[in-house]
Amino acid sequence: MAYRKVDEEILQQVRGIISDDKRILTEKQDLIGYSYDASFGVFLPELVIQPTTAQEVAAVVKLAYEETIPVYPRGQSTSLSGGPLPVEGGIVLDLSHMNKKLEVVPDDLIAIVSPGVLTADIHAAAEQAGLIYPPDPSSSHVSTIGGNLAENSGGPRGLKYGVTKDYVLGLEVVTPQGEIIRTGGRTVKNVTGYDLTKLIVGSEGTLGIITEAILRLIPKPQATAALMAIFDDIVTSGEAISKVLTSGILPAKMEIMDQTCIRAVESYQPSGLPVDAEAIILIEVDGHARAVEEEIREAAKLCEAVGARSVKIATSESERANLWKARKMVSPAITRVKPTKISEDATVPRSQIPAMFARLKKIREKYNVNLVVFGHAGDGNLHPNIVADKRDKDEMKRVEQAVAEIFEAAIELGGTLSGEHGIGNMKAPFMEMELGKAGLEMMQRIKESWDPKNIMNPGKIFPKPGQRLNLTEG
Amino acid sequence: MAYRKVDEEILQQVRGIISDDKRILTEKQDLIGYSYDASFGVFLPELVIQPTTAQEVAAVVKLAYEETIPVYPRGQSTSLSGGPLPVEGGIVLDLSHMNKKLEVVPDDLIAIVSPGVLTADIHAAAEQAGLIYPPDPSSSHVSTIGGNLAENSGGPRGLKYGVTKDYVLGLEVVTPQGEIIRTGGRTVKNVTGYDLTKLIVGSEGTLGIITEAILRLIPKPQATAALMAIFDDIVTSGEAISKVLTSGILPAKMEIMDQTCIRAVESYQPSGLPVDAEAIILIEVDGHARAVEEEIREAAKLCEAVGARSVKIATSESERANLWKARKMVSPAITRVKPTKISEDATVPRSQIPAMFARLKKIREKYNVNLVVFGHAGDGNLHPNIVADKRDKDEMKRVEQAVAEIFEAAIELGGTLSGEHGIGNMKAPFMEMELGKAGLEMMQRIKESWDPKNIMNPGKIFPKPGQRLNLTEG
Repeated sequence: MAYRKVDEEILQQVRGIISDDKRILTEKQDLIGYSYDASFGVFLPELVIQPTTAQEVAAVVKLAYEETIPVYPRGQSTSLSGGPLPVEGGIVLDLSHMNKKLEVVPDDLIAIVSPGVLTADIHAAAEQAGLIYPPDPSSSHVSTIGGNLAENSGGPRGLKYGVTKDYVLGLEVVTPQGEIIRTGGRTVKNVTGYDLTKLIVGSEGTLGIITEAILRLIPKPQATAALMAIFDDIVTSGEAISKVLTSGILPAKMEIMDQTCIRAVESYQPSGLPVDAEAIILIEVDGHARAVEEEIREAAKLCEAVGARSVKIATSESERANLWKARKMVSPAITRVKPTKISEDATVPRSQIPAMFARLKKIREKYNVNLVVFGHAGDGNLHPNIVADKRDKDEMKRVEQAVAEIFEAAIELGGTLSGEHGIGNMKAPFMEMELGKAGLEMMQRIKESWDPKNIMNPGKIFPKPGQRLNLTEG
Repeated sequence: MAYRKVDEEILQQVRGIISDDKRILTEKQDLIGYSYDASFGVFLPELVIQPTTAQEVAAVVKLAYEETIPVYPRGQSTSLSGGPLPVEGGIVLDLSHMNKKLEVVPDDLIAIVSPGVLTADIHAAAEQAGLIYPPDPSSSHVSTIGGNLAENSGGPRGLKYGVTKDYVLGLEVVTPQGEIIRTGGRTVKNVTGYDLTKLIVGSEGTLGIITEAILRLIPKPQATAALMAIFDDIVTSGEAISKVLTSGILPAKMEIMDQTCIRAVESYQPSGLPVDAEAIILIEVDGHARAVEEEIREAAKLCEAVGARSVKIATSESERANLWKARKMVSPAITRVKPTKISEDATVPRSQIPAMFARLKKIREKYNVNLVVFGHAGDGNLHPNIVADKRDKDEMKRVEQAVAEIFEAAIELGGTLSGEHGIGNMKAPFMEMELGKAGLEMMQRIKESWDPKNIMNPGKIFPKPGQRLNLTEG
């Protein structure tokens, strides 16, 4: 597909759509800020528009469709998979300015939100009504709900509460041809035709642009309790996870950090973590106060019975915050080691977590890379992170091979390429490995039927012919 | 689309695919049993095949695609929306014989099942492992999981636990062109490309035939408690529902029966229900034993505070079963009144339940129909049922108008045509009213891209040009 470049004629038309010239960015210094996200690679857009209404989005998309110009929706660009990168040039739609609506309707247990609203603001608004919006991607204080929706973001609470998709009842969407449609609605049950809501959530902006969402809220759990368990053997920690999950307890969070991770955190900010331990597990339960108290004690007993070196239950809110501090320091700790971080989210059936750890250990040794593993153990969603220096081409070649082997391992163990970050451009070459030719083709048919000119976030999810992972260029 | 008829040449080819002739039915007396479901209308298929493997299904579908013959997947035919009806003739695939696999994997909290397995058998197998499969359509003892998946069945537990779709991690599917694909997998988190799993679940057999499913299980709640609250005023009962749901309690079930319903049950089998009451609400909570005990008392207090005439908490397992008896008798009770039952599932935002009851009351009077209302109050999923006699053409005309007005009311109140029964053939004419032209077209594009010859369960979901609701013929 040959795309048209953004020229003066296009700009004139855009000025007719967007009343305020300040929301049309064409200067290179402005465009640079839109050329990257939290993943790898830099791609300069030709034009950035900051729409504030669905009508503006629809008019721009209609123009882009008529003229065959790529369009990339973008929130706060915290994507770890390249979701908003303008890999084919064209127009970036910065939706972070479309942030006016955040309406909680307690009687219907819903919130109606604009795509540019920060997810943390939705959390706060729901709590004020005695409710919660459960999805909690680690980026929630800086990422927009629009980005969370496009990528179907997860987070630690996925184990008990599910992911973003599980809390979306309805959407307003601008289609690739610039029509405004509504999907779903305000009700939890809705089987009227195909579930376009759940198709669009997680489609990484390739099927349309979300301009409003109706989110499902639930009553706020009354109490929370947490524990930290330390294991000499990572296989034992895997057994503890299984034991807890089959005991009748469904924790809100169940996180794991491997030894490399523990050491990185401890050397970043010493806080008494056991650097000789092979794994730390953090468990949090929530719900009714009495239930929570009993469940956390039961979980501690189960960890001890399996062979944990030690288990510590937080006895106050500040102790609980303290337990989680180590987990929260992982990201800053590991990026201090080297400047380039490749953050993966390969996910395996939870019984395969010990096997996946063994595979990751081998990969670390085989390719001599700085591989750190942590993640959401309860749902099998691990985060193998490799830190490197992208100026070191030789190291990056090894990283490339290690990343490919991580994907292979996940799929061989019955898992998936991506649990919560999305495919973006980097993982696209591996799609057929997981889905097979026919499976990938059925996805492509949907894309082509909705976006025959491939203008909507091109270069994401679907590999180009012969496309391979490349971390040494771009 | 002109479909080819099943002739001797086609039959020869089918005999080459299905080894056992007994699983190929061509005699009229056999075909009649496949001409109806639990909804309205009778359509005779030309051929019935009982496949037992995905390979057989794929080969039959490939043949049907090549020869342009309609194919209809069918489970136990409990559909209330006409899902399995062979409205264009052609081949019915009876999947109830494909029922060999029911494997629970406790460590991964999943079950892997064949489509012909009864949903109740999955419930039982999960419970043996200390787990539950939460979706509980009222038909679960007689309906297959394949049918539940095709229709995305709900049930009373939808309020707390969601619907069938929320518990499907992966599928094996035969596409309309006879390819076998796998979607999703064994992990709760999976964002690898488009969510074909959630697109296919609830697509009513129009996008492919499910030949295996991986279901998510959760730990079994330790305890359950229930109450019955009686209200003189249906609006007050609506307030009680809201009060409970915003108090921090998330009941497992929250059912309502209106006065017509109470009277029907009481005249069917007298059990002391108050026939002068305007509404009965049944609430069930589950979870940790202590939490449950406290929550049911709190819910009772809230009902009383709002103005319930009386509230009864079940103090034993048998008392709890007794409370639910009234709700379970609704279906047999109302079908005793007249032979033809039109069972709807219009769903509204839960704050609109009192308004919906008011609208239904008007519709009952305006068209002079036997309209009974019960349903899942907690999630706004009501079941307005009209009982009539299909031999009485004049009455059926009034029923037709009443049904159309029920749909209009639901949509005007911000709700949806169908909460859990599906669209099938009967509700197809109302699709555009809810979705708009563009919204319906985006669904149609998916259908056409997957099934260009429209052989896969044709006549469902999408209306034919000019199609109208017709209850007086067929």
